[in-house]
Amino acid sequence: MASPVLPSSGILTPLGLDAVRPEPGFWGDRIALNREVTIAHCQEWMEREGWIGNFRGERPRRGREFSDSEIYKLLEAMAWADHPALPELAATVARAQEPDGYLNTRWPDNRYTDFEWGHELYCYGHLIQAGVARLRAHGEDELTDVVRRAADHICDRFLATTETCGHPVVEMALVELYRATGTERYLEMARRFIDRRGLPALGDIEFGRGYFQDDMPVRQAKVFHGHAVRALYLASGVVDVAVETGDVELLKTVEAQWESTIARRTYLTGGMGSRHSGESFGEDFELPSDRAYSETCAGVASFMLAHRLLLATGDVRYADLAERTLYNVLATSPALDGRSFFYANPLQVRVPAEPLDGINLASEGGLRSPWFTVSCCPNNIARTFASLPAYLAAADASGVRIHHHTPSEIRSGDLVLRVETGYPWSGEVTVRVVEGGTGRISLRVPAWADGATISHGGVRRPVSPGYAEAEGAWRPGDTIGLDLPVTSRWTVPDARIDALRGSVAVERGPLVYCAESVADEPPLAEVAVRRSAPAERVVDGAVELDVEAAPLTPAPAAWPYTAEGNGSRAAGDGEPFTLRLVPYHRWGNRGPATMRVWLPAANDSASSEGTRCE
Amino acid sequence: MASPVLPSSGILTPLGLDAVRPEPGFWGDRIALNREVTIAHCQEWMEREGWIGNFRGERPRRGREFSDSEIYKLLEAMAWADHPALPELAATVARAQEPDGYLNTRWPDNRYTDFEWGHELYCYGHLIQAGVARLRAHGEDELTDVVRRAADHICDRFLATTETCGHPVVEMALVELYRATGTERYLEMARRFIDRRGLPALGDIEFGRGYFQDDMPVRQAKVFHGHAVRALYLASGVVDVAVETGDVELLKTVEAQWESTIARRTYLTGGMGSRHSGESFGEDFELPSDRAYSETCAGVASFMLAHRLLLATGDVRYADLAERTLYNVLATSPALDGRSFFYANPLQVRVPAEPLDGINLASEGGLRSPWFTVSCCPNNIARTFASLPAYLAAADASGVRIHHHTPSEIRSGDLVLRVETGYPWSGEVTVRVVEGGTGRISLRVPAWADGATISHGGVRRPVSPGYAEAEGAWRPGDTIGLDLPVTSRWTVPDARIDALRGSVAVERGPLVYCAESVADEPPLAEVAVRRSAPAERVVDGAVELDVEAAPLTPAPAAWPYTAEGNGSRAAGDGEPFTLRLVPYHRWGNRGPATMRVWLPAANDSASSEGTRCE
Repeated sequence: MASPVLPSSGILTPLGLDAVRPEPGFWGDRIALNREVTIAHCQEWMEREGWIGNFRGERPRRGREFSDSEIYKLLEAMAWADHPALPELAATVARAQEPDGYLNTRWPDNRYTDFEWGHELYCYGHLIQAGVARLRAHGEDELTDVVRRAADHICDRFLATTETCGHPVVEMALVELYRATGTERYLEMARRFIDRRGLPALGDIEFGRGYFQDDMPVRQAKVFHGHAVRALYLASGVVDVAVETGDVELLKTVEAQWESTIARRTYLTGGMGSRHSGESFGEDFELPSDRAYSETCAGVASFMLAHRLLLATGDVRYADLAERTLYNVLATSPALDGRSFFYANPLQVRVPAEPLDGINLASEGGLRSPWFTVSCCPNNIARTFASLPAYLAAADASGVRIHHHTPSEIRSGDLVLRVETGYPWSGEVTVRVVEGGTGRISLRVPAWADGATISHGGVRRPVSPGYAEAEGAWRPGDTIGLDLPVTSRWTVPDARIDALRGSVAVERGPLVYCAESVADEPPLAEVAVRRSAPAERVVDGAVELDVEAAPLTPAPAAWPYTAEGNGSRAAGDGEPFTLRLVPYHRWGNRGPATMRVWLPAANDSASSEGTRCE
Repeated sequence: MASPVLPSSGILTPLGLDAVRPEPGFWGDRIALNREVTIAHCQEWMEREGWIGNFRGERPRRGREFSDSEIYKLLEAMAWADHPALPELAATVARAQEPDGYLNTRWPDNRYTDFEWGHELYCYGHLIQAGVARLRAHGEDELTDVVRRAADHICDRFLATTETCGHPVVEMALVELYRATGTERYLEMARRFIDRRGLPALGDIEFGRGYFQDDMPVRQAKVFHGHAVRALYLASGVVDVAVETGDVELLKTVEAQWESTIARRTYLTGGMGSRHSGESFGEDFELPSDRAYSETCAGVASFMLAHRLLLATGDVRYADLAERTLYNVLATSPALDGRSFFYANPLQVRVPAEPLDGINLASEGGLRSPWFTVSCCPNNIARTFASLPAYLAAADASGVRIHHHTPSEIRSGDLVLRVETGYPWSGEVTVRVVEGGTGRISLRVPAWADGATISHGGVRRPVSPGYAEAEGAWRPGDTIGLDLPVTSRWTVPDARIDALRGSVAVERGPLVYCAESVADEPPLAEVAVRRSAPAERVVDGAVELDVEAAPLTPAPAAWPYTAEGNGSRAAGDGEPFTLRLVPYHRWGNRGPATMRVWLPAANDSASSEGTRCE
């Protein structure tokens, strides 16, 4: 089955790319654009930058020490998309493999001399994921042969040692290769890599061993910490090992880590990683909007992890977080034309970005860039979007569960269903039976959807967040209607998040909204909003919202810390005006702009959690 | 005269170390501890780490590429302190100098091949500052000979090129050497280094050219930006060049940059630099407490810059900022025993630090460290404290101005004055005439000191912030009394500082206060304060303050962003308790603790600038 994750046990069973076919709509359009534009875009840039040439032996070698992994992520995208460019690119990679299976263009002359920063096992991890994709979507070929030889080399070299890699990913890759091939030592290798971590297995570094989760054994950690992408890739591998080895306690450990992380270290967008320095999670409630790192790849990794936890447990909260991340991090990174990307996804941009010509040396920026010195994010989007249909629905013992409502055709058992919806803009979802059968059809009702209803067989009834379930013997033409209350709502942060005190945000359905101010007009540092009901407008097929705002009147202070009343105030006493909010995932497509998700609350009677005024 | 800055013109003329002698008291004690403990501490660590051995040709070379500069900062400290260890250390350095004057232990085999990161001119800058200190405090010797040869080498090599260094400091060093020796090409070299910057003169880097102020000519910048230490060292050199070349417009440019920086990019402590990433200033009003970098060295650099601007203009606001920085950044870095240091000086620490054994690989940490991989801060404190008396007072055309009130004896013209005070704990300052003469005696009245009085000749009168002036023919035994209202006050941030919305802080005289919670008991993430008058207590000679607090009652939320009322609130409705505040500069001396300067305001009627509730 063509799915990136195929556990041998668990509450849910994935449906593969063969079973879930997206149709034009929010996600279908993005999946098509990814296949038609983004994959070629990535290949062109990596050819131009010489990262592909490295495999041809072109010298001097170009790109960062981990650039091989970018080609592998792209190969994975190509495999899921059955892209015609795959065989030639795979052949280029194959030619660089050494007789014993070793494959890396950076370290051939000094293999395995730098586990902290060398990224060799990390590169293998992505190579193996590409191979698994190829095996499942196509079958054996040159790429899968390369991958088996690389995996065998890893086991030969590392099964008996105490080493591991500074950057996790090989763990989940090896488990998946075990699942795809049945070769048990791949699973054993993954298990050992995980158990070694934190003994410690790596040297100390400037960021501290927590950076690569080597400060304590994974079983002792209470929350995700350190470099966010590493932490989340590692946790994904841990779930995979726990599931395949039947280690219930280990699975529960990751669930508890996830719970703490969601409650205390996650942005409203689902984004993870508060710090630019070390690209890491911050401490609990350290969630600044402006310096939010919220790397696109951390969003990808969190999405992968949530999917694994969902499959293992069937707990819908994982699908809720996956949806939040999908619409507000993964959909945000690529521009509407699929040719430029956000690396970091902050929730506030204070100064309009300078347009950048060519490659972005940094990860930040208030404009999307076509390419980066470290260009993990575009390739990660490419492979995730290429495999996205496999994440939309799953089978359980009783039937099928649809987790993400988007136009698509879904085949599960005998049933063929057609999902018709304008979601996320509208909350009306129609599931039409194309080919009949029996079984429960469960439709996810997101946590925010209080007041949802389901109707089928002529009966409409209210449903709570969780799953709306419909059972029956289904015949072609039967329909199930799910009506989700997609209306805008004001959201208030936990008072312990210092960076957000006194601010509010607007969400609508699964979407987080933001104020976007082209050329910073009006200046977003000087607005406060009133929490009246937003007015909706449809612009280019997207719902935008108008809220009531008032300007701050900054006091012209030489020093910004004064006795009460001397400084400027957020009271918003000035002439009210209308502030347009756009879906966060659409911001930055209209040129240099400022942006903020969280807006200071004006002096309506309960606007600030910093003060209650009853 | 033994002073680190001796401009040839300006409103004020420095008084050197020979003229200002500190006595036991807040600063006198620290200056003595620095001389007796910290200087030797730094030398021992640099001997142990091999950074001094590099000059003896010991191999492999140890330390970072700029470690030579640390030895030079220490030599400068030794020179001001007339420390007996100087000659031997200077001789060690001298032996590494090459015949043409080149001196650097890192790059002898590939000189000047990396201007972005090589730090060669930066190292010379600190070497020259050490040489100027030696020349002024002692006279010509082996060290000053080394320095002249190095400076001549720089001019020979760089006068006709377009190159400059990624890390400024050589500019102000060369101007000072010109002032000390009269050699005009040192000034010309400094001027050229400054004019080259931003044309650009350096390559692009991950952080962007703004990191080392090479993104635009210095005359075009509107505010300090990029790496804070670099920006402030550069600005200091620019002031020096402007003063010596009579470039009034250039001086005004720096004044305007400083004004914007103070109004929008400076912490309550006077600390500068909001970001760990790039160690840089943030955008306007980007001033998070928890991730405040506020490097000790940026405090040193800001103090040096403010002093230069004060000397050039006589404008007391520069002395106000210098005092704020002195008491809340420079006094904060070293532990009370002078043997460990903060590198970063955040305004909030969320989790008690793990005690660290030995060298700190990073710059962060909620505990002071005895040494760092990059150990600029301890040496920078050492050289600044060693020369501190020269910053306390200055002469003007009419007499003497005392800027920092601390027990000391000050000689200016015929006058010898003795300052007696318990400042900053008390606001009573007595200036006693020891040797008589004529002239105006001006005592600084800080900006916060509304209600101050001056009394002399039997008359007491109110004085406004600025200078309290007393004129007369002074006879031995005459006294001037300055009474500053050193009482605690609540301070509110500008509403545009998102990170501080709804929070308040306490200051008392020049001191910023903070809540320090040993082992985080009570948990500082869960308190709110009421703005009643704090109660004062004297503990170990320092004034601590008790304020009324109430606990937050965190809601046990699985997700921290909810509709109004579901999450935990900062209302502080719980049982009130007393929260102890300590002077910020004293925090962290009682073991691992959490700390915060800005405290969420409880629901008293005007506590939050995020909401007004009249």
